[in-house]
This record gives sequence, structure tokens and C-alpha cells, in this order.
Amino acid sequence: MTKILKSPQELQVLSDALLKAYDQNQTLLEKGGQLPPLSLLIDCAKRIKDLLFPGFYSDDLLIFENRQYQVGADLFALAQQLKKLISLSLCHCEDQPCLESERDQRADEIAWKFLEYLPELRNILFLDAQFALEEDPAAQYLEEVILTYPGFQAICYHRIAHWFYAQKIPYIPRGISEYAHGKTGIDIHPGASIGIRFFIDHGTGVVIGETTQIGQRVKIYQGVTLGALSVKRSLLGKKRHPTIEDDVVIYAGATVLGGKTVIAKGSVIGGNVWLTNSVPENSTITCAPMDIQSSTTPKKITTKSIKNK
Amino acid sequence: MTKILKSPQELQVLSDALLKAYDQNQTLLEKGGQLPPLSLLIDCAKRIKDLLFPGFYSDDLLIFENRQYQVGADLFALAQQLKKLISLSLCHCEDQPCLESERDQRADEIAWKFLEYLPELRNILFLDAQFALEEDPAAQYLEEVILTYPGFQAICYHRIAHWFYAQKIPYIPRGISEYAHGKTGIDIHPGASIGIRFFIDHGTGVVIGETTQIGQRVKIYQGVTLGALSVKRSLLGKKRHPTIEDDVVIYAGATVLGGKTVIAKGSVIGGNVWLTNSVPENSTITCAPMDIQSSTTPKKITTKSIKNK
Amino acid sequence: MTKILKSPQELQVLSDALLKAYDQNQTLLEKGGQLPPLSLLIDCAKRIKDLLFPGFYSDDLLIFENRQYQVGADLFALAQQLKKLISLSLCHCEDQPCLESERDQRADEIAWKFLEYLPELRNILFLDAQFALEEDPAAQYLEEVILTYPGFQAICYHRIAHWFYAQKIPYIPRGISEYAHGKTGIDIHPGASIGIRFFIDHGTGVVIGETTQIGQRVKIYQGVTLGALSVKRSLLGKKRHPTIEDDVVIYAGATVLGGKTVIAKGSVIGGNVWLTNSVPENSTITCAPMDIQSSTTPKKITTKSIKNK
Repeated sequence: MTKILKSPQELQVLSDALLKAYDQNQTLLEKGGQLPPLSLLIDCAKRIKDLLFPGFYSDDLLIFENRQYQVGADLFALAQQLKKLISLSLCHCEDQPCLESERDQRADEIAWKFLEYLPELRNILFLDAQFALEEDPAAQYLEEVILTYPGFQAICYHRIAHWFYAQKIPYIPRGISEYAHGKTGIDIHPGASIGIRFFIDHGTGVVIGETTQIGQRVKIYQGVTLGALSVKRSLLGKKRHPTIEDDVVIYAGATVLGGKTVIAKGSVIGGNVWLTNSVPENSTITCAPMDIQSSTTPKKITTKSIKNK
Repeated sequence: MTKILKSPQELQVLSDALLKAYDQNQTLLEKGGQLPPLSLLIDCAKRIKDLLFPGFYSDDLLIFENRQYQVGADLFALAQQLKKLISLSLCHCEDQPCLESERDQRADEIAWKFLEYLPELRNILFLDAQFALEEDPAAQYLEEVILTYPGFQAICYHRIAHWFYAQKIPYIPRGISEYAHGKTGIDIHPGASIGIRFFIDHGTGVVIGETTQIGQRVKIYQGVTLGALSVKRSLLGKKRHPTIEDDVVIYAGATVLGGKTVIAKGSVIGGNVWLTNSVPENSTITCAPMDIQSSTTPKKITTKSIKNK
Repeated sequence: MTKILKSPQELQVLSDALLKAYDQNQTLLEKGGQLPPLSLLIDCAKRIKDLLFPGFYSDDLLIFENRQYQVGADLFALAQQLKKLISLSLCHCEDQPCLESERDQRADEIAWKFLEYLPELRNILFLDAQFALEEDPAAQYLEEVILTYPGFQAICYHRIAHWFYAQKIPYIPRGISEYAHGKTGIDIHPGASIGIRFFIDHGTGVVIGETTQIGQRVKIYQGVTLGALSVKRSLLGKKRHPTIEDDVVIYAGATVLGGKTVIAKGSVIGGNVWLTNSVPENSTITCAPMDIQSSTTPKKITTKSIKNK
């Protein structure tokens, strides 16, 4: 293959044009600020998940007898990376200290506080995995859920992201939740409040909005949206997504919208149902039979009448 | 950046708390068992795909003249990794030998048997790619399908996963299918039985359940669910997903549910149709025109009446 | 772990069988042709995105003072890789020069022309990011959009893919758009023509077809399909996907089909609407209230009547 034909001068012209474009529409970086690069954010997210379930995702901790040393070393390495990530993220908080030394100290405190949350988080995620095993007829082992289920990965990353959201750290919460979204097709805003024993099956296309509140033992299928009725910016900070109480099941493709909509406990929302109002306890809401048309019989028929042919 | 502030003693406290959490809710690993880490599983899945279509995905085999040596070396390397993966997976079979030497021998046999299946698998996948090329007006070359189409990646990984499912190996089938799900948004349970010349277009949101049976030359679009009417654990092992016969097309967003539901050959299921009953041969099932409302005309209008405005 | 049991002779048999399968159903590679491997294609796509927003995705360019040297070096490295990628891709053009030296020169020219487009592309993408920030009540910073939003990644990769599509280079356009599809769940055909200030929120399941035309300031939500009414191969090259004019909003799950369908400017298409006809300017199209059934009240009720209980 021949060498690239252009001269260093031509490369210089190109480089200058690009540098000019950066400065024409500046991001925080061009203004002299700092940002956590996505690569660092994803590295931290993976390290956290590895520490929650060592031996499952990466093959670093297969020797059971050595694990106490390994856990110590992994915790220390994570602490360093996490501190760097948090410190870079804090650059964007108006109400945070701007001196690098102060920011570093605050990052140190937050990183440590998160590491202290890990044992509790492991326990909560264990309950999520157990609930998936109990509820999914296709699940064979608890370990299979932890190792492979996208719904489990999604709730794992969500509970991490939600912790950072509660600390009001910029970038990290959304960065982690969008990383999980990309891996699983499940889009849970880091602000959503989700009770213990939560299970999403299949999951692709699920969207759960920022101010959603979900109780315990809730089960959700692919394509469910828990969303807002309006997306006006004036609603920022107000409750605009629904409340889902304990023991509710929401089947594939259902849409539940609005900050005042409450799905009361024990209810079942059927596939493709579109709901913008509250439903009382133990309701079962399903779509009316669909009107469909068949070319083999010219008249309009319902699903039921097809059966009788 | 300043060093992390905490002392070794504080790190020890943190590490002990995490180790205690591991032991409070033990997985197989904490009980002294073994598991295939996800990293090994994904490594094997990629190596298999590379060997089926050398030169397409990784850039290791670009020198055509050397390929026989390369194929031999790649087969040997895959055999070693696959054996390790299968051996670790077999730890979870109640009816499998527990001695490591016996398990290794069984893993060796299964790995070899799989490698022997590769030529047939290459032929079958070639037919899938050809069918996609024939059916998709946007496809230009066979190589484009193999290189880039998510529907092709999904059926490729599914046919691998299904082979391991048939051997009743734990973890590997679901691990491979969830890896493909994450890459493509297409969720095919490894148990699903799928005939030759199968094509999924676009694909995001497709869900195909464990006991689904699909004939030859079937075409499916994004968001289609072939699912169960009930998810009770008592149904485990029973046929609970539909049968799709030869030459059926199912358009985007359609839902077909139930183990007794048969879409007979040559039928076309329209977009968004919801079906829980069988349809006879060569049926065309579509939704009735949707009732929609428009703010520019206050009365309730159908799609058709809009056209006339 | 014991060694793999088979002899070199047995490995040879396996290798021969696989080589035979390659030759039984030959791709371009087995016919002596060349292809860009997916790994090279993805490497180029990532390098381009890194150069458009340095410091955001990889951590290579954090030292602001050095950036002019870094940008020059990164441009040069990208030029080399891009030239290799384009040259390998051009092997499949019937109307392109077949001599490697001629192909390399053409690849060089195309690579350079693309690099010259980078400053303009940066400016356009900046407008997309600004529009997302203005329209999404959950967005806090412009940098958050660029760093984490899947809709922004999708339009970024689409604008790159569309440039190569306009140059009629094989593989690269679809390769980049399917890479983005895999990362975001958003499937935009590289042929789609999209105006400035474009925003897709959440995005999973969005499908935008090859001949779609989209104006300025258009907003689209998850699960929207802008598709064709028919997928016959005879339609290849004809306009078969809709036209979406300026300032249109299309909510989650809506389907708009057909090459003659025009959503005129300022219109709002509600969630789950199914449209195959044009709508006039400033229309608001919504589904009629859904008929749903509730087990707590035996009679058929609408969403509204539930509210009154």
C-alpha cells in the first residue's frame, strides 16, 4: 500500500481547521474545564460489578483461597480510579469547591462512602437475582441470572447509578445508566426509585423515567414505558412519571404515563395496554380483543372468530 | 492528585465487610464450586464466529494462501478454550461426573463434537445469509449481510447456542444468546428450534421463546414477540410458545402468543397484530384501520379520512 | 486440566473439513477478493468520533495545551487507517479501478476528502447536541449529551455513515450504522437524509429507512418506525420511506409508512399512532382512547371510566 500522498503542510491546514471548529463551538474542555472521559467511567462501572460478584464476569478471582487478598487489592484499585472519576466529574458542579485539592478531598470522601455501600448493595442485588429465579420459568440457576440476564445487569448498574444520583454528582449517574442501556436495551433513568426484588424479563425497549417510584417484587417485561405525559422543560424537578406499588406485573409493550398515575398494589397490566390514569388494588387491565382483518375471509373478524374457522 | 486518604486498616475493615456479604448470600463460587466467567464465554463465542467466516470480523486471516495453517492453529486454540469453558460449566450439572479428570474428559469430547459440527454450521449460515440478500431490498452483497447485519449475527449465535442447549450444558447456551441479545437487541432463547433460511430484519426488540418452532424461509421484523400466554413456573418444560410454519412473514411489532398457536405456512402477519389463536395456510392478518384523532379537525377520524382532507 | 486428547492427524481432518466448507459456499474472500474486516471498520469509526469531540470518549487528549500536536498526530493516524479501510472496501465496486495502486490512490483521495469534512461535521453535531439539551427536561449539560446520550451517538455515527453512502463506498456506510445500531438500539439506514438539530430520545427500537427525508428541528422517541409499505426488491432505489418536515415531533412507538407519506411541518404524532397517509401542517394526531378491560369491573370500560371509580 502506497504512503498517504499529502504533505505535512496539508496536514497542518487540516489540523488548524479542526482546532478552529473546536473553538467556534466550545465545550467545557475547550473552555479549560475538565470532564471524566467515557473510558474511565466504563472502567469504574465494570470494576464495581466485578467486585459485587467476583469470578462471574472477569476471570481475575478464580482462586477461592486467595480471595481476601484479591478483594483488598481490587478495592484499592477501584478506590483510586473512582476518586479520579469523581474528581473530574465534580468540575461541573457550581456549588462544589473549585480548588483541585479541595475537589480531590471531596472525591476521596465520596469514593470511600460508595465503597462502604458495596456490602449492602451485594445483599440487595442477591435478592433481585433470587426474585428473577423464582419468577422466570426459563431460569435454571441463580448463577445463570447473575452471569447472563440483561434484566439483572440493568438493575445492578441502576442501583450503582442511583447512589451517585442521590449524591448529586454530575455525569456519573447518567453515564453508568446509558452504559447499561447500551448493553441491555433497558433505559432506566438514574433518578428512578426502585424497591427490592425487582425483575425485568427480556427487557429490550424498556424505558423508566426519572421520577418513577416502584415498590417491592415488581415484574416488568420488554418494551414497557413508564413515562411522562409531557416533556416541557418547566416540569424539570417535578414528579412526572408514574408510581408502581408492590407486587405489580406489567406485560410487554404496555405504556403507563403521568406523575399522578398510580398502579395500586397487586395489579396486572396486560401487554400493549396504554394507561394514563390510576388503577385500584388488584386490578387486571387488558386490551379489548383487537379488530383484525384476514384476506382469506373478506369480512372484518376478531381474533376469536378466526379460531372458529 | 493527592493519594487516597484512608489507612490500610480502614481498607481491611471494608474488605472484611465485603467478604462477609459474599458469605451471607452465597453463590456457587462461595460454596467452593466453579463457574465459567463471562469473559471466557464471550471469548469462545467470538472465536467460533471468526472460524465460521474467517477474515470478516477480526483481521487475523487476511492472507488467503496461509489460511490452512491459520485455520488449524485457530481450531486448536478454540478447542483449548472451549474445553476449559465446558469443563467449568459442567460443574453445575447434578447428573455429571464431579471428578475434575472425568469432567475434563467429557468437556474434551463435547468440544471436539462441536468442532466437528462447524462445517455443517458454515453451510447452514451461508443459506441464511443468501436468504437475507434475496429478501432485503437494501442488501447489496452477501458479504455485507455477513459483515454487518444484526439479524445475521443473531441467527449465527443462536445456532451455536442451540447446539449447546441440545447437549444440556449449563450456562453456555444462555450466555451466548444473551451476548448476541446485547449486541443486536434480538433475544432468541437457545431452546428455540429454527429452520434453514431464516431472516430477521432490523431486529431490535424481537423476542423468541424457548419452545418456539420455526419452519424454513421465515422472515421476521423488529419488535416481534413469539411468546407465552402464561409464565407460571409449572409450565417449565411444556410447549408454551407458538409454531411458525414455512414461508411465513411477520411484520414489525406483531405479537404471537401460546404453545398451541400455529401460524400455518405461507401466512403474512401484519404490523402490530396481536394473535393468540392459530391461522390457516396463506392467511393475511392485518389490524383494522386505527381510530385516530386530529386537532385540526375536531371530530374523530380514521386514517383514511385524513387522506381526503 | 488435562491436555486435549486428539492427535494432530485428527485436527488435520477437522481443519480440512472446514476448509472444504469454505470452498463449497464461497464468499468474496474465498474467491480471492478482499474485504474490510469489521475490527478495522469499528476502529476507524471510534477514531473519527474521538477526533470530533477530543477528551470525551477516550482519555488520550486530556492535556489542553498539547492538543494541537495531538490533533495532528490523531489526524495522521486516522488517515492511514481510513485509507486502508476504504481501499479494502473499494474491491467490491464493479465500476472502480481494480489495480491495487489505482485503488489506493482513490482511497487516499476519499480519506482526505472526509478529513476535510470533519470541521463542518463538528459544527453540525454541536447543533444536534444543543437541540437535545434544549428539548430534554432531563438533560443538565451540553457535555452530558455528548458524553452519554445514545441519540447523540446515533446521529453522530449516522452523519459519518451518510457521508460515505453519498460517495457510494461499499460496506463502510452500513458497517458504521450497524455498529451504532448495536451500541444504541437505534437503526438509521445510512441513506436517510436528516436535517440539522435532530434529536432522538431514549431511542431503543427506532428504525429509519433508506429513503426517509427529515427536516430541521425534528424530535423522535423510542420505538418509532419510519418505514416502507412494501419490501419488494423491485422497489430498490425508489423512494419508499416517508418525508418528515421541519419541527415535527413523533412520540414513542408511532409507525409512519410509505414513500408518499408526508408529515407536514409543525405536526405532532402521538404515541403508538399508525400512519400510512400524509397529514397537513400543524396537525396533532393521537390514537382514540383504548378499549381496555378490567377484572375488578366485569363490563368493558375505557381508560376514562377507570378514573371515575
